[in-house]
Amino acid sequence: MRERDVILLLAEKMEIGDDCSVIPFKETHLLLTTDMLHQKTDFPEGMNAYTIGWRTAAVSLSDIAAMGGQPLALTVALGAPHFEKKVCEQIRDGIVDCSKKFGVKHFGGDLDRHNELTLVSSALGEAAKPVWRGGARAGDLVAITGELGRSAAALEFFKQQEYKMANELACFTPRIPEGLALAPFATSMMDISDGLARSLYQLAKASQIGFKIDGGQLPFSVEAEEFARTQEELFELCIHTGEDFELLFTLASENLMEARRACEFVVIGQVTESKIQMKLGTELIDIPDRGYEHGKQ
Amino acid sequence: MRERDVILLLAEKMEIGDDCSVIPFKETHLLLTTDMLHQKTDFPEGMNAYTIGWRTAAVSLSDIAAMGGQPLALTVALGAPHFEKKVCEQIRDGIVDCSKKFGVKHFGGDLDRHNELTLVSSALGEAAKPVWRGGARAGDLVAITGELGRSAAALEFFKQQEYKMANELACFTPRIPEGLALAPFATSMMDISDGLARSLYQLAKASQIGFKIDGGQLPFSVEAEEFARTQEELFELCIHTGEDFELLFTLASENLMEARRACEFVVIGQVTESKIQMKLGTELIDIPDRGYEHGKQ
Repeated sequence: MRERDVILLLAEKMEIGDDCSVIPFKETHLLLTTDMLHQKTDFPEGMNAYTIGWRTAAVSLSDIAAMGGQPLALTVALGAPHFEKKVCEQIRDGIVDCSKKFGVKHFGGDLDRHNELTLVSSALGEAAKPVWRGGARAGDLVAITGELGRSAAALEFFKQQEYKMANELACFTPRIPEGLALAPFATSMMDISDGLARSLYQLAKASQIGFKIDGGQLPFSVEAEEFARTQEELFELCIHTGEDFELLFTLASENLMEARRACEFVVIGQVTESKIQMKLGTELIDIPDRGYEHGKQ
Repeated sequence: MRERDVILLLAEKMEIGDDCSVIPFKETHLLLTTDMLHQKTDFPEGMNAYTIGWRTAAVSLSDIAAMGGQPLALTVALGAPHFEKKVCEQIRDGIVDCSKKFGVKHFGGDLDRHNELTLVSSALGEAAKPVWRGGARAGDLVAITGELGRSAAALEFFKQQEYKMANELACFTPRIPEGLALAPFATSMMDISDGLARSLYQLAKASQIGFKIDGGQLPFSVEAEEFARTQEELFELCIHTGEDFELLFTLASENLMEARRACEFVVIGQVTESKIQMKLGTELIDIPDRGYEHGKQ
């Protein structure tokens, strides 16, 4: 089975499909999310233990951000073939530095012997008004925080053994303050961990709408532009590669000015009735539904 | 490094050491816990996918029980080399059946390709008055729910390819109602996932006390008694093998009658100033600190 079919199978008995599980609790909402990372898929040659720790925390904090939440606690299950003191210390410091930066005060976890270095983080958060994937309406604007292609550039730097730059880029910033600032305005929101293209499809499906993206407005990062020799390569790095962990969201146009005062972002297009297309000069092309499939629910 | 040294290393920057992370929240406490299970260590030949799912949920629910909490939500990260429909369905059903039985209403998770079948569950719970490991006082009684050695017997049944009986025993009951019932009385509590002996040492360390266990009162299970040919073997199965997931707790003797009305349990000894010993007839022996070391925090 493909991962998306497994998700359908799970969804028959588990209410899943957003960035976090949302638990109504005492006039607010608790958010719970889990992410699995492991050596083979997620830790390229040259990624240091601090970066591994940082990313372990950051991927789950990004899911809390994507619901407009404030993180409260983080647990990590660490499976490793052996436990080297220096590696454990650096992983711990990466986890703790990233988490504390965004207000996490409580930690827990589990240790296990495992053939492959495997880290699973779970974050608990709170959101007074969680932002779901299903609230976008035709006519809304669609926007994005930060820049595209920084994670793809990090991967290129790892390949070229430019490890210092690669590790710096790989320690991405989960958009917690941005998520909190946008929550009052966003009609739908998610992180683009699977890439912008795939995320547009996921948001469109949840909200039963479409998108018309203005290719000229996409915030390509300088790093990605340096690696790309053609427009095709630039799109590959910035739209299909994924792992950028920026926030993709929609908002009513009348709230644009107020939202801009709360948070920096770039409007990249409009919500339409159907189809996911991009305007490139005078052309209107279909964006292919292609990206990372790692099956985040 | 040994796992317990890694825990010390983590504890320098993360407040860990109980069955769950405890987060004070709106005049109550949230509980968060994570457990990693994987093929090589946790799923013996013959363990079916439903049992794997059940245990995945149950180990984390047991941690919630051990703090006297009510579970609210569960997430599972599933890593597998490939996703077979039937296996996924059965794992899902095991997770959902176990969770719903104990009041979990919200689910989430992550999927990943992984060389080895790996499941990581995280449970969120609530406890008005969490029960810690550190509250036992000399003079308290020490007690335990259920029976000892059922999980060890399950392992023996798996070895003998008695898979039906083995799977039944392996689908253990996380002691959620018992934990809730005992919370008002227990001065300290934990689950005995690492075995009774190791758990006594952990509780003793956290509370800075000792124990005098009455060997004649230990509730050995019929299943373990059938496998054991000698008293040494019985102790090995029931005290050192672990994974029984019963609740070990202490309480003031004046609360014994009221606690008994709330929940079934067996008093197995007393809290002392120091040393962890067992009375066997007229002998007083030291219980060795030996059991499963899988590093649960």
